[in-house]
Amino acid sequence: MSSTTASIADTLVVRHRETLDEALTAIRTRDHFSAYPESPSPRVYGESAAAEGKAAFEALLGSMFRVETAGAAGSVTTERSPYGIELEVAYPRLTAAGIDALLEASRRGLVGWRDAGPAVRAAVCQEILARLHARVFELAHAVQHTSGQAFVMAFQAGGAHALDRALEAVAYAYDEMTRHPATAVWEKPGRGDPVRVDKTFTPVPRGVGLVIGCHTFPTWNSWPGLFASLATGNPVVVKPHPGAVLPLAITVQVAREVLSETGFDPDLVALAAEADGDRLAADLAVRTEVRLIDFTGSNAFGEWLEQHATQAVVFTEKAGVNTVVIDSTSDFTAMCGNLAFSFALYTGQMCTAPQNVLVPEAGIETDQGHKSYADVAAGIGAALDRLLGDDAKAVEVLGAVVDDGVLARLEAARSQGQVLVESRSIEHPGWPEARVRTPLLVGLAVADEAVFSAECFGPVVYLVATSSTEVSLQTFVRTVTAHGAMTASVYSTDPQVLDDARAAALDAGVALSENLTGPVFVNQSAAFSDFHGTGANPASTAAFTDGAFVAPRFRIVQSRRHA
Amino acid sequence: MSSTTASIADTLVVRHRETLDEALTAIRTRDHFSAYPESPSPRVYGESAAAEGKAAFEALLGSMFRVETAGAAGSVTTERSPYGIELEVAYPRLTAAGIDALLEASRRGLVGWRDAGPAVRAAVCQEILARLHARVFELAHAVQHTSGQAFVMAFQAGGAHALDRALEAVAYAYDEMTRHPATAVWEKPGRGDPVRVDKTFTPVPRGVGLVIGCHTFPTWNSWPGLFASLATGNPVVVKPHPGAVLPLAITVQVAREVLSETGFDPDLVALAAEADGDRLAADLAVRTEVRLIDFTGSNAFGEWLEQHATQAVVFTEKAGVNTVVIDSTSDFTAMCGNLAFSFALYTGQMCTAPQNVLVPEAGIETDQGHKSYADVAAGIGAALDRLLGDDAKAVEVLGAVVDDGVLARLEAARSQGQVLVESRSIEHPGWPEARVRTPLLVGLAVADEAVFSAECFGPVVYLVATSSTEVSLQTFVRTVTAHGAMTASVYSTDPQVLDDARAAALDAGVALSENLTGPVFVNQSAAFSDFHGTGANPASTAAFTDGAFVAPRFRIVQSRRHA
Repeated sequence: MSSTTASIADTLVVRHRETLDEALTAIRTRDHFSAYPESPSPRVYGESAAAEGKAAFEALLGSMFRVETAGAAGSVTTERSPYGIELEVAYPRLTAAGIDALLEASRRGLVGWRDAGPAVRAAVCQEILARLHARVFELAHAVQHTSGQAFVMAFQAGGAHALDRALEAVAYAYDEMTRHPATAVWEKPGRGDPVRVDKTFTPVPRGVGLVIGCHTFPTWNSWPGLFASLATGNPVVVKPHPGAVLPLAITVQVAREVLSETGFDPDLVALAAEADGDRLAADLAVRTEVRLIDFTGSNAFGEWLEQHATQAVVFTEKAGVNTVVIDSTSDFTAMCGNLAFSFALYTGQMCTAPQNVLVPEAGIETDQGHKSYADVAAGIGAALDRLLGDDAKAVEVLGAVVDDGVLARLEAARSQGQVLVESRSIEHPGWPEARVRTPLLVGLAVADEAVFSAECFGPVVYLVATSSTEVSLQTFVRTVTAHGAMTASVYSTDPQVLDDARAAALDAGVALSENLTGPVFVNQSAAFSDFHGTGANPASTAAFTDGAFVAPRFRIVQSRRHA
Repeated sequence: MSSTTASIADTLVVRHRETLDEALTAIRTRDHFSAYPESPSPRVYGESAAAEGKAAFEALLGSMFRVETAGAAGSVTTERSPYGIELEVAYPRLTAAGIDALLEASRRGLVGWRDAGPAVRAAVCQEILARLHARVFELAHAVQHTSGQAFVMAFQAGGAHALDRALEAVAYAYDEMTRHPATAVWEKPGRGDPVRVDKTFTPVPRGVGLVIGCHTFPTWNSWPGLFASLATGNPVVVKPHPGAVLPLAITVQVAREVLSETGFDPDLVALAAEADGDRLAADLAVRTEVRLIDFTGSNAFGEWLEQHATQAVVFTEKAGVNTVVIDSTSDFTAMCGNLAFSFALYTGQMCTAPQNVLVPEAGIETDQGHKSYADVAAGIGAALDRLLGDDAKAVEVLGAVVDDGVLARLEAARSQGQVLVESRSIEHPGWPEARVRTPLLVGLAVADEAVFSAECFGPVVYLVATSSTEVSLQTFVRTVTAHGAMTASVYSTDPQVLDDARAAALDAGVALSENLTGPVFVNQSAAFSDFHGTGANPASTAAFTDGAFVAPRFRIVQSRRHA
């Protein structure tokens, strides 16, 4: 760094120090912490922020997005709004032919970025987050119109919460890089004078990090890996899902802007946009320069990466069969209400949405007396009606269907068992072209394991009748051990059942929520407190975010000499 | 755990708490720390310890070793002392047919071990180390007569230092598992009452850990992975090199003894001894139950593991081309003496022994004036003569040749270039059948890169003439980046060259020692201070021991409920 850029970097370290310290405390206490307000209210963000953000988003439509990608040739336009508006944003197109040039450019700034050290890298990452936060309304529109999330959810999950998760990753990275001192004096006592050796310990990056984004959560799922790799010194190539490029294009644009301003090579962060049907992620993933991969998506490609990208450390989040075990409840109405919201939120298009609800065929005990299996189905149906009865309110929960695959699975699910609660089609009051569906509840027997042991991504919930809660817990452990899960939850008034469920969750390696009846939902994972995913079952090889998420992203190189 | 075993475990936690605290401090300061005295002196270990340890070792010879292995059938005897004594120790033989039974038994105690928690697991591991320490003389003989190390080195590198490295791994594991609280209250402020959620965070093991030992450092190289996996809750299967079973058989015996006494399943640690030529490690490594692999050995099998054992996290230490760059020195005699010791120690049969010495063909400046390339060779030769002139003293440095492969490579190396210092054969005064050789110094040109870019494991050193120190540093970075290295060192009186060497070492991803002329040697790596290996070049995928060495060995499973 020149002295000017060193001074800019120092300014950033000072500016962001307090937030970093708060984040460092939060990752150790796992208490509530947030650096980015989740309410899009004018009282928080100012009177003009919403309109300005919307205008900024609209100004991007129908134009060539302003970002440079080394090795790219021509442009590509691949996005389609689930709400039906014309996006037509073009991006530089990268193909296999451009990969050499891209990776060469990526690595050009590696030494300068490495030598800046942990404190400056963390501060530059925080500055990127601050600039993204300044564009949070614009980002929310970008997330809404690529993923189909409703606006407020896009603002929160795609904006504020995603920023928190990214900051959390930066905090873990900084913590891990600084757990050892930069220098030490080793003094070994002996017969005569002690032997004294001066040592330095320098974190060095692994190589290029590749981030492979998904369609439904382009920022929330990609930012932790992006910022964990970048903060630990690695250049990062961002390969978005062709259906959700814009949120990550804005991310890359901001990152390159901040890197340039602080005297680093902007190509340390690059956008790799591909045409639909290209296999750019696979081509990039096996390159020797690529040493870290963060992937969210299908089991098939996730497993392919784990098996073929053996030169890299691979962090995957794939699919699973999220499970709810219902044994009994002290608040039947609230339980059904909580579950209904979890099923409906963003049309179940969440890796954390519950799919398999295991309930004894003989029914359950509740505060409203005994409820049969059919009563449970009816209770959930009634709760869905309450939640989604008003179309204008319903669409703010449901958002829009992201792609045709969801509709196809929804249709196919109707013949997999007994339809207990029908899925309804809702006309969106604001966006008539949006495809909006309410959840389908399908009744299955425990013998239908072939059906419910596969993920059915979208608004499909299986109400599986079992012979007992004990069998429910066994089924839960067996299916999650074999097929994975991101979440699990249990309802019971019996402390022994809760203990058994907790033991079952440890065996299955999945996070457990117990008796959620209030404003916390199983599919929500709070930054700085909840570990998202575990890596302990087939649904993921990693958690957002813990020591194992950052420690393998860098190495320590030491030097030593006599003092 | 029953209340009795819980009380035993608690006693161990109290007993070992102070040492654990010291180790936790040491891994954060990277200052000097050792919990196990390295001197085999009677003043330290008592008058009878040496004789008792020798007797204990001798009592093992010619008998069936007392350890049970689930799935084993019959016995196997595969070791041969490099000093020529009859070992004839038999071990339960495991073949591919027994793997199912072994892994089933391994996993039987997993839940009990998991539920014991980090503090009890660390204390049980420390108790195993304390019992191994009580048998350190016996272990030293076992290491000497399998690896060929001289006795004092076997006592230190195979005993005291290995115990320190193991304790270091336990400390990192404990630190990593406890960086998050076991429970937390998450309190999110809102409009009304805050939302309060009680959470638990439980470290859970990944699965079975497989430790694949090597011939030359059966304990030092295997214990860090073994104890890192065990402390983080994983059952461990230990597959020793057929030539060095006894040190790990003693390890497993002690571990099982302590596990049994503390109420855990002894099969949590198992010995998997195979016949020469079996492929037990490969068969075990790809089993789905095996989720962690620690390997020390050849590039070929290490790379095979990295590419094929994709269900596991693989920590490998393989071969490389350890490099010395000589630019200039302020103490020519001491430099040559230091290098001579590094070349001679254990006949160069160390993954850290220097192989390629890069020196300008025009010679170097020294405190004794200009020294030509030939002068440098002669200086090293003279230093080797001083160090190894007395046979009785020489064998205490050299130890014995471990296998025929070393002799074959030594012979072949004579024709690879100009022999500058001949290798001598020394008759061991105590063990006439031991094969003892002094280092061979072979002159090469920088154009001979095909020769010196392959590891020649054993007492072979290449003195490579380069056109300048700049070319030496470039050659260093190029060969280490492509072929790996565990160590590097530089000699220079020029601060700029030292800076350049440090930058080169960061680029090559290898630990650097500078101007070693005293009692510290490039091939020695001190527990709690030096990171052994980096994972940043092809010689290894991991360092002993840092956050990345322990963090991926467990996962965090949380549960949460409204407070």
